[in-house]
Amino acid sequence: MNAYRELSQQLGDLMALEEVLGLLQWDQEIAMPAGAIDARGRHVATLSVLQQERWCSPRLGELLGLLHSDDTLAAVEKANVREALREHHKAVKLPTELVRRWGERTVAGHEIWVKARKAKDFSLFAPVLQELIDLAKQKAAILGPDQPAYDVLIDDFEPGMTMARLDLVFEPLKAFLIPLIAQVRQRQAQPGLPDVAFLTHPVPAAKQREVGEKLVRAMGFDFDHGRLDTAVHPFCGGAGPSDVRITTRYNENSWCQSLMAMIHETGHALYEQGRNLDLASQPVSRARSMGVHESQSLLWEKQLGQGADFWRARYPQLQQDYPFLQQVSFDDFVYGLNYVDLNNFIRTEADELTYPLHVILRYELERDLFSGKLAVADLPAAWNQKMQDYLGITPPDAALGCLQDVHWSAGLFGYFPCYTLGALYAAQLFQTAVAQTPGLVADLQAGNLAPLLAWLRAHIHQVGSQYVTDELITRATGRPLDPHAFIAYAGRKYRALLNLDSFGL
Amino acid sequence: MNAYRELSQQLGDLMALEEVLGLLQWDQEIAMPAGAIDARGRHVATLSVLQQERWCSPRLGELLGLLHSDDTLAAVEKANVREALREHHKAVKLPTELVRRWGERTVAGHEIWVKARKAKDFSLFAPVLQELIDLAKQKAAILGPDQPAYDVLIDDFEPGMTMARLDLVFEPLKAFLIPLIAQVRQRQAQPGLPDVAFLTHPVPAAKQREVGEKLVRAMGFDFDHGRLDTAVHPFCGGAGPSDVRITTRYNENSWCQSLMAMIHETGHALYEQGRNLDLASQPVSRARSMGVHESQSLLWEKQLGQGADFWRARYPQLQQDYPFLQQVSFDDFVYGLNYVDLNNFIRTEADELTYPLHVILRYELERDLFSGKLAVADLPAAWNQKMQDYLGITPPDAALGCLQDVHWSAGLFGYFPCYTLGALYAAQLFQTAVAQTPGLVADLQAGNLAPLLAWLRAHIHQVGSQYVTDELITRATGRPLDPHAFIAYAGRKYRALLNLDSFGL
Repeated sequence: MNAYRELSQQLGDLMALEEVLGLLQWDQEIAMPAGAIDARGRHVATLSVLQQERWCSPRLGELLGLLHSDDTLAAVEKANVREALREHHKAVKLPTELVRRWGERTVAGHEIWVKARKAKDFSLFAPVLQELIDLAKQKAAILGPDQPAYDVLIDDFEPGMTMARLDLVFEPLKAFLIPLIAQVRQRQAQPGLPDVAFLTHPVPAAKQREVGEKLVRAMGFDFDHGRLDTAVHPFCGGAGPSDVRITTRYNENSWCQSLMAMIHETGHALYEQGRNLDLASQPVSRARSMGVHESQSLLWEKQLGQGADFWRARYPQLQQDYPFLQQVSFDDFVYGLNYVDLNNFIRTEADELTYPLHVILRYELERDLFSGKLAVADLPAAWNQKMQDYLGITPPDAALGCLQDVHWSAGLFGYFPCYTLGALYAAQLFQTAVAQTPGLVADLQAGNLAPLLAWLRAHIHQVGSQYVTDELITRATGRPLDPHAFIAYAGRKYRALLNLDSFGL
Repeated sequence: MNAYRELSQQLGDLMALEEVLGLLQWDQEIAMPAGAIDARGRHVATLSVLQQERWCSPRLGELLGLLHSDDTLAAVEKANVREALREHHKAVKLPTELVRRWGERTVAGHEIWVKARKAKDFSLFAPVLQELIDLAKQKAAILGPDQPAYDVLIDDFEPGMTMARLDLVFEPLKAFLIPLIAQVRQRQAQPGLPDVAFLTHPVPAAKQREVGEKLVRAMGFDFDHGRLDTAVHPFCGGAGPSDVRITTRYNENSWCQSLMAMIHETGHALYEQGRNLDLASQPVSRARSMGVHESQSLLWEKQLGQGADFWRARYPQLQQDYPFLQQVSFDDFVYGLNYVDLNNFIRTEADELTYPLHVILRYELERDLFSGKLAVADLPAAWNQKMQDYLGITPPDAALGCLQDVHWSAGLFGYFPCYTLGALYAAQLFQTAVAQTPGLVADLQAGNLAPLLAWLRAHIHQVGSQYVTDELITRATGRPLDPHAFIAYAGRKYRALLNLDSFGL
């Protein structure tokens, strides 16, 4: 067998293990009886060990070494070898003992976090957070001894990203958002804004599911290769591109939340279902980074799903489905979709303007925790100070403050920036799709989403990890990561929605 | 690490793989989108290869060799080594090429069988059946070169069982059943038997589910470690004893079928949930054979679920749930549960009297196919002849005849006898439980199932594979496999139900 074919087979087995782990995760959230949790832990541990063993196998290393310098490979094959090498290096470098300890402490960390959040008491969580930070530093020192620890950690989620580059995009974003939010606050103190009571009009879960499913189908989600279920936290998972499983939750007093969650998860799902199926078992077919994956969910949810064009042709149907909307004008409806709640402390409930500041706050705190500038004990105060500086509000307790997110308890340091990178990529991509596709906006207004999906398929989904992220984004949009597409879009949108200019704001 | 502990860890990993494969199977029937079937095939293949590799690993062989002759081991440890050795030997002996070919041809066989059954044309299925028989013969020649092929195949499902022993139990069973069925036929031609139209009274699926779930709970099924779903074919599966998943189907015109299927699958589930949890990751905790597992489903479904004692205290509640039963006397209800349909061609729909003859027929045909006495081309005629000889009816076509079962298309030769072995074990076990447990029948009549479950837990579920099947049954019932408990029970029951004696039959 030739070396590349042998490599592909080995990587195919690894992908199968990863997909099975994806299914176990879905099952745990959706179907597993509660009493099976210990057994499930053993199942996941066994498959993870097998995965680790396979990534470390000397034969895999040999093949990768051989093929790494093989100039006869096609470009996509080279990219596949590059992506596999990344994983192989990490697997080989990290000592089993550290991996085991990491697994144990993140499980413990989650348990402790749940209790601490319930008790609204950060001091309960502080010791295990310290421990996880120390372990993450050890990990980073092994994987990238010459780099700052936090840069190494980001790389797990957004390969190639660094603090230096994040600062270059986050600083202009802060400079744009903080004053804009202050203007929004002033405007909201004035009369003349639409009533958004329709957002909390009660809708039974079954009706929400029916309406949401229609939209999910219209977006192009393929139910022959996926399914939609109800979960405590919405997610997109499953077992590979032919088995993509999205979930949502139904709050009967917040129909819009579940609808937007469905659009968001369908955005992720369309990426997965759109991957290059000929290469589906190979690393090169996967999303290049968390930020790029998030760009797809946010493009559909925010750029489209909260925009007037997307709803133009659909609003009459929605008014039929939800008769209480018959009293709500189209403009008021779109305003409501984008309502900015300036008293909200919670990232996951934030709107498009405040969300990036929630992320930047976390990024800055993580960065300072890892550089040693911030001590764990001082985290709550630092959090509250930044909330006041950026959003003008101070959380009343740690549950609404620095204990609100699950990420740190799971050791996911460096993950938060990806959410906002996704929003920035989404703005760049949507802007380019519109510019490159004649009639795209008219199509969207007419309810035809196919041309947009085709553009995303060609420029993102099918490309996978063929190029590193910078090249992917540059090829798709003509320039690398750049916050100005988002800034221009958000400024235009919110100034118009809130009629800021006529108020001299 | 000591050798036994190292072995336990390796066996624990193997059990984890097996349990994950169980979950994949459940998911495929219950949740998987249709378009994911190819990917699922790859997932199963990858895990199966990993399983095979692990069973063949030289270190596992070394440990087993070492421990096999270690007299310091406790009895249960020795039994665990014995059970692991069985699997190891099979894995090591069978060439990968044969395993691969077997996997391929059984998948193809299933597809072809579906088409042949639809077309009612045995000739479509004959070539692949021949091929599977030839492959099974090759397999048997490798695993047991000194034994008849069919004995080697039975051993996969019922370790230690042989044709010689089967003949010893099946011959008296035939001698008892064939004339009894002839008497039932004569009796059914006479007047005075209850009307069983209530069996086909329509009941909505949701109501059937509600009523069935109550019963499943009352039997002791633990929903914290299991779940109940709807499937095309009822089964009991899942991912180990803490995650036992049963399924049923609801035919709105046959409420009794789904109720009995639920009792049957719960019988299997109670075995699984009752396994020794301290040893759950070890082979010794599993059922010793298919026949023993089936004894649990049949004990609950037939010995109990179709008996008067079980329903004595429950019938008023069932009459409340299904008001059309208010016109049906208790005796007529019990008669209906046991109604013998003498015009039925289908094994899975057969009653307790005709079922064993369906099985014996298949056993005799399999035996003759493997000895060379019967050619594949002559199978349909041989089938029909035996149907006439044993049950007095001739199937109008192959779909109702020798194409009705999935088993041969999946290469499951030697599996059928286990169904009837289960019925025989069930009769022995129930008879003994009654004899050994003071007040058991009164408890059952009062609706208290706990003492029976406790007896089964102690004598079967917790014992697992600690003893070989003969010893298991002998320890539990005082004697090895013996058809006379079933013969006595069935004769008594059906003579009384049909009032045969007063008709001089």
